[in-house]
Amino acid sequence: LFDEVLARGAVREAVSDRAWLQALLDAESALARAQAKVGLITDHEATAVANACQPERIDLAELSREAGAHASPVVPLVRMLREHAGPSVHFGTTSQDILDTATMLVVRRALEPMLVDLVGAAKAAADLARLYRGKPMAGRSLLRQGAPITFGLKAARWLSALSAAIERLRVIDRDRLAVQLGGPVGTLDAYGDKAFVLVVAFGGELGLGVPVLPWHTDRTRIADLAGALGTAAGTIGKIARDVTLLAQDEVAEVAEASPGGSSAMPHKKNAIAAISALACAKQAPGLVATLFASMTQEHERAAGAWQAEWRPLRELLVSVGSAASWLRASLSGLSVDPAKLRAHLNHLIKESGVDTTGQATELVDRVLAAWEAP
Amino acid sequence: LFDEVLARGAVREAVSDRAWLQALLDAESALARAQAKVGLITDHEATAVANACQPERIDLAELSREAGAHASPVVPLVRMLREHAGPSVHFGTTSQDILDTATMLVVRRALEPMLVDLVGAAKAAADLARLYRGKPMAGRSLLRQGAPITFGLKAARWLSALSAAIERLRVIDRDRLAVQLGGPVGTLDAYGDKAFVLVVAFGGELGLGVPVLPWHTDRTRIADLAGALGTAAGTIGKIARDVTLLAQDEVAEVAEASPGGSSAMPHKKNAIAAISALACAKQAPGLVATLFASMTQEHERAAGAWQAEWRPLRELLVSVGSAASWLRASLSGLSVDPAKLRAHLNHLIKESGVDTTGQATELVDRVLAAWEAP
Amino acid sequence: LFDEVLARGAVREAVSDRAWLQALLDAESALARAQAKVGLITDHEATAVANACQPERIDLAELSREAGAHASPVVPLVRMLREHAGPSVHFGTTSQDILDTATMLVVRRALEPMLVDLVGAAKAAADLARLYRGKPMAGRSLLRQGAPITFGLKAARWLSALSAAIERLRVIDRDRLAVQLGGPVGTLDAYGDKAFVLVVAFGGELGLGVPVLPWHTDRTRIADLAGALGTAAGTIGKIARDVTLLAQDEVAEVAEASPGGSSAMPHKKNAIAAISALACAKQAPGLVATLFASMTQEHERAAGAWQAEWRPLRELLVSVGSAASWLRASLSGLSVDPAKLRAHLNHLIKESGVDTTGQATELVDRVLAAWEAP
Amino acid sequence: LFDEVLARGAVREAVSDRAWLQALLDAESALARAQAKVGLITDHEATAVANACQPERIDLAELSREAGAHASPVVPLVRMLREHAGPSVHFGTTSQDILDTATMLVVRRALEPMLVDLVGAAKAAADLARLYRGKPMAGRSLLRQGAPITFGLKAARWLSALSAAIERLRVIDRDRLAVQLGGPVGTLDAYGDKAFVLVVAFGGELGLGVPVLPWHTDRTRIADLAGALGTAAGTIGKIARDVTLLAQDEVAEVAEASPGGSSAMPHKKNAIAAISALACAKQAPGLVATLFASMTQEHERAAGAWQAEWRPLRELLVSVGSAASWLRASLSGLSVDPAKLRAHLNHLIKESGVDTTGQATELVDRVLAAWEAP
Repeated sequence: LFDEVLARGAVREAVSDRAWLQALLDAESALARAQAKVGLITDHEATAVANACQPERIDLAELSREAGAHASPVVPLVRMLREHAGPSVHFGTTSQDILDTATMLVVRRALEPMLVDLVGAAKAAADLARLYRGKPMAGRSLLRQGAPITFGLKAARWLSALSAAIERLRVIDRDRLAVQLGGPVGTLDAYGDKAFVLVVAFGGELGLGVPVLPWHTDRTRIADLAGALGTAAGTIGKIARDVTLLAQDEVAEVAEASPGGSSAMPHKKNAIAAISALACAKQAPGLVATLFASMTQEHERAAGAWQAEWRPLRELLVSVGSAASWLRASLSGLSVDPAKLRAHLNHLIKESGVDTTGQATELVDRVLAAWEAP
Repeated sequence: LFDEVLARGAVREAVSDRAWLQALLDAESALARAQAKVGLITDHEATAVANACQPERIDLAELSREAGAHASPVVPLVRMLREHAGPSVHFGTTSQDILDTATMLVVRRALEPMLVDLVGAAKAAADLARLYRGKPMAGRSLLRQGAPITFGLKAARWLSALSAAIERLRVIDRDRLAVQLGGPVGTLDAYGDKAFVLVVAFGGELGLGVPVLPWHTDRTRIADLAGALGTAAGTIGKIARDVTLLAQDEVAEVAEASPGGSSAMPHKKNAIAAISALACAKQAPGLVATLFASMTQEHERAAGAWQAEWRPLRELLVSVGSAASWLRASLSGLSVDPAKLRAHLNHLIKESGVDTTGQATELVDRVLAAWEAP
Repeated sequence: LFDEVLARGAVREAVSDRAWLQALLDAESALARAQAKVGLITDHEATAVANACQPERIDLAELSREAGAHASPVVPLVRMLREHAGPSVHFGTTSQDILDTATMLVVRRALEPMLVDLVGAAKAAADLARLYRGKPMAGRSLLRQGAPITFGLKAARWLSALSAAIERLRVIDRDRLAVQLGGPVGTLDAYGDKAFVLVVAFGGELGLGVPVLPWHTDRTRIADLAGALGTAAGTIGKIARDVTLLAQDEVAEVAEASPGGSSAMPHKKNAIAAISALACAKQAPGLVATLFASMTQEHERAAGAWQAEWRPLRELLVSVGSAASWLRASLSGLSVDPAKLRAHLNHLIKESGVDTTGQATELVDRVLAAWEAP
Repeated sequence: LFDEVLARGAVREAVSDRAWLQALLDAESALARAQAKVGLITDHEATAVANACQPERIDLAELSREAGAHASPVVPLVRMLREHAGPSVHFGTTSQDILDTATMLVVRRALEPMLVDLVGAAKAAADLARLYRGKPMAGRSLLRQGAPITFGLKAARWLSALSAAIERLRVIDRDRLAVQLGGPVGTLDAYGDKAFVLVVAFGGELGLGVPVLPWHTDRTRIADLAGALGTAAGTIGKIARDVTLLAQDEVAEVAEASPGGSSAMPHKKNAIAAISALACAKQAPGLVATLFASMTQEHERAAGAWQAEWRPLRELLVSVGSAASWLRASLSGLSVDPAKLRAHLNHLIKESGVDTTGQATELVDRVLAAWEAP
């Protein structure tokens, strides 16, 4: 009911139960392939596992139901897979290995559309920066007019902050997504001297990083991801806040392309995209805090704090993805009213006696150059 | 996939899209009945509205889809209802009136099973308090043995904290759930001199409180609810933490009735219910923070912060409901090992020289008396 | 350096180290008096304890230094007091008993000036509601003009939300502040059959409530307080946000009495009080979350989560106290510009065709009547 | 009173009012030197500014008092400095330029001792990993014994997580601390064609980075820092939690070198350092959330959300610094009881039939090699 507002765009699907199941199956299947590659199981067995790992062969409802008894959906999944493919399924591994690896896959698959929307929003900001590079307007400080800027500079600021947020997410995607493989207490004890080549092969199969150590209770990867998502949300929130303020009747310097209506006030034109982006972005800080608080995981594998990550991570990905999608919609269609810019500027110049936009255009050029650099 | 772990019990269903749609329809329908009662529309019109407000007549998927364009599902719902029942649907009201009122209904319907589980957990704690009233064991402070208590006293503490949490939720249910009715900017302008009797009638139809003023941007009701849910979660977390600690191999003073297995370690008996309760309870503080942070709502109706409430409120209800359900399961089947209690007690008495449980049994009696008082 | 911005008013002093030391001494001294009253120690001993409990006899720096070795300042305090008054100091009690009781005293002493400022802000809102009861202006929804209200209705909303926040804090002050007394593991074992009369006497000495059970690891009292403070902060934030929006150059419907200047823009008039109130209010949700998360306290007394409460509780009291003080300053001197109200209203009426404030004045009267009711 | 518990070590001093004042003076002074270097003011004027920027010439109390009227301590500071050194003080800049730059200096100066303690803790973990590299013990999962590991592997995990946290903080220190310089609305308008060389010179004077754009309302730098501190806190919390669990009477596999006593139970040996580290680490998630939530900053400079950063950033630095200091103390003196390790291991082997530590020693070697790599 609220999804089109608070879970817009492709990330919602990328973190659905179906997507997570696919990732679990991908992880089990890749593990079997890697084990065949290093000689721990036969190619035939790996093929049987791969054949079993078809989502249409899994009853998602039954899986979910059984998950409760073990505080993990992997235990019943393994049971189901073994019915098809025997004991070479899930060999020497533990449920957290598979679930954490699947989570990394889900994260990667969710980051992809999220980054598309963030880059789309950044491009729209870049377009605005170019178009209004030297267009003077009132700059505002503490919600009061301060001194002139250009609209291009305002858009360049949005672009610059978005670039920083995008860069952080790309670094996470590149450096911090890794397979998990350790077995019950992280000693890789089932694999003998094949253990380390197996981890490398497992990472290779999935295109994920290879950790020095199993990270069952070292959640710095999740925390780094949470932080980067929080940064992205905060950046989106800042820009969306600007749009809603600029779109007030009394300011009216911008308007969205498809403003929303009201059930009771037909004359109203609401900056729905920015408002929704803001609503989504506001979800992030609390969810980030939950993920940071869940880092306190006991011993070799945690009693509660690990399970506590699942829902907030999913919610966080959805919220930031949705916020990015809305922001892109807001900025892509943003129209600027030159008459209003001029009217407020004139008022400001009269009040302040300041009539210069300083280095605004040079700043715009520098931000655009940095954005366009390969 | 994670729902059986993190969204156990009946609350999940009570806050589903289907349940929220039902509540929206209940609100529209009750509003029409109230308007007929005070003479603003005819009985015939009210009946037409009631007939339109059948969930099976609403295409939930279409409704959700259209909700995005207005940052609210009520705008398209009204359009659909008016196709059936004409302009007397949603007369003089605004989407937030209906959504806030529906939210209050959803909250009430979610609190009911949550309270059943909390009371069930409290009863189980009371049973343990009675059964082990005078059974001495080691009391622990800073995770070290301190001085003797009785197991009954430990259980009485759980009971006492649960009672406080239950009481807070009951007060919210009784005093803080109210209809919302104000129209676009909260002036009740469509209703003329019928406005105030209408609000009373609307509250009466739904069994909800009647506010002095529309509370569109006064979110103290939501905040009070969030606080009470946070208190309940923290209380559950405390008890579940105790159970997981008492169930460690090296302590082993308690065991759950249906411990969970492991995909890799068949000998292990995990206190799955307490662990899951803990995982659920950990969701609460971050969600509560989001709801408190969303109180900063602009002017007569907010641009983003209102929409920002929907998902965390739903998540919070589900998390606390699930935690309550797990805690009840954990405590209801908890077995106590007298030999272990005795062994640790003996060690403690030797170390500390203290061999008294002080007023433990009297304290148990007082807590039980307070719990059993009408 | 930041205190005049983020720790304004009298609460800062009420939660200072000096104030907390005084409360610790008050608790030790009251306990001795209560013990004398019920015959556990002599009057002479109680007088000796009272004489020792003079803040000027305690070296605060030394006390703080020693606190680290025990994760509590009470252990060294008791050592110091016993040097003066012998073993009847701190008889049968534990450091958490004294620190928790002192915390309750500090809370009460901090709530007093906080409530004075909140009531002051509410009175200012009531004055505005009376003065501008029927003064029409543009009502705003989603940061767009929606339909007419009166300024009095806006102020009545502020008043109504403040009333709710004040009421919650008063209920906490009346019902949820209680002494802590249990001894090391909460069995009151040192006091024999005097235990229960002692707790009553202890509560009586300090004017605090008497709990059914020691609440060493039942932190529902702290959580309820945190929730009520979070509600107050959110309410203040909402009102301060309104003021900052109304004080924008382009809206300019209100101005603060003592707007702040700028180091670089002499023409600017910033709504400093509202801005500072907002900055303070924003501290609350995160701190509230920390306190809720700290409820998971192990066994009879916690290993870390208890100590984790001290700083956030202090910060939360200071932030809300400061926010209340700023809000009172903002509202007390708020001037309203009728010409601007009229200009925006005319624009709105033209756009919307709506020219009624509905039940605005009646709503104002009802809120004022509720506020003035005894 | 609580500082020795919750604000241990050198970070507290590094973020004191005195330290912040020094950083403000360093910023003003460096700006004047940079302006002289590029020819905007004379060398003589820069020297006069430098002479004025002596902390002993500033009345900190008066400064703090005046800060309230402007929601910033820089406005009165500039007034004081200009009394000594005339209008070349603070030329063309705005209070946020100076305060943000000073904040970056404070952060750098606080990170230094924090990193010393984190590295100290990591070294202690490395020593434990080396010493107990092959020493078998029970590995634990969901707070139940699962399969054998070595104590070295447990310590290697601590080391590995600490390394990740340290690396994140070093990246922040190297890449994300930058000067702020933009003037009132970020256009550098006072500096004409000297603007960009000035920013470079300013960065050079202070050893801070040079941003492409003023970052007045682009708070990604603060958010990245907050995230890295949150990651560090979570890592510390995980390790401290392990120590407290291993130090339980019933486990007793480790003990701290200087356990704390109790005011009432002389036999108790509390793992005070780990407990305090845990208490400090628990402060972080809520404070991180506040900083993320404060990213929504309006227009060119924010009305409230900027000021809202100051206290939580300080608290966060102190909490993580304190947690690091405690963790170092805990790990540095940690003693391990081989008899207890063996006893629990024997029990586990009997239960599980598993008698191998798998690749534990090889994993230890790999972690140590990564740690020791240049």
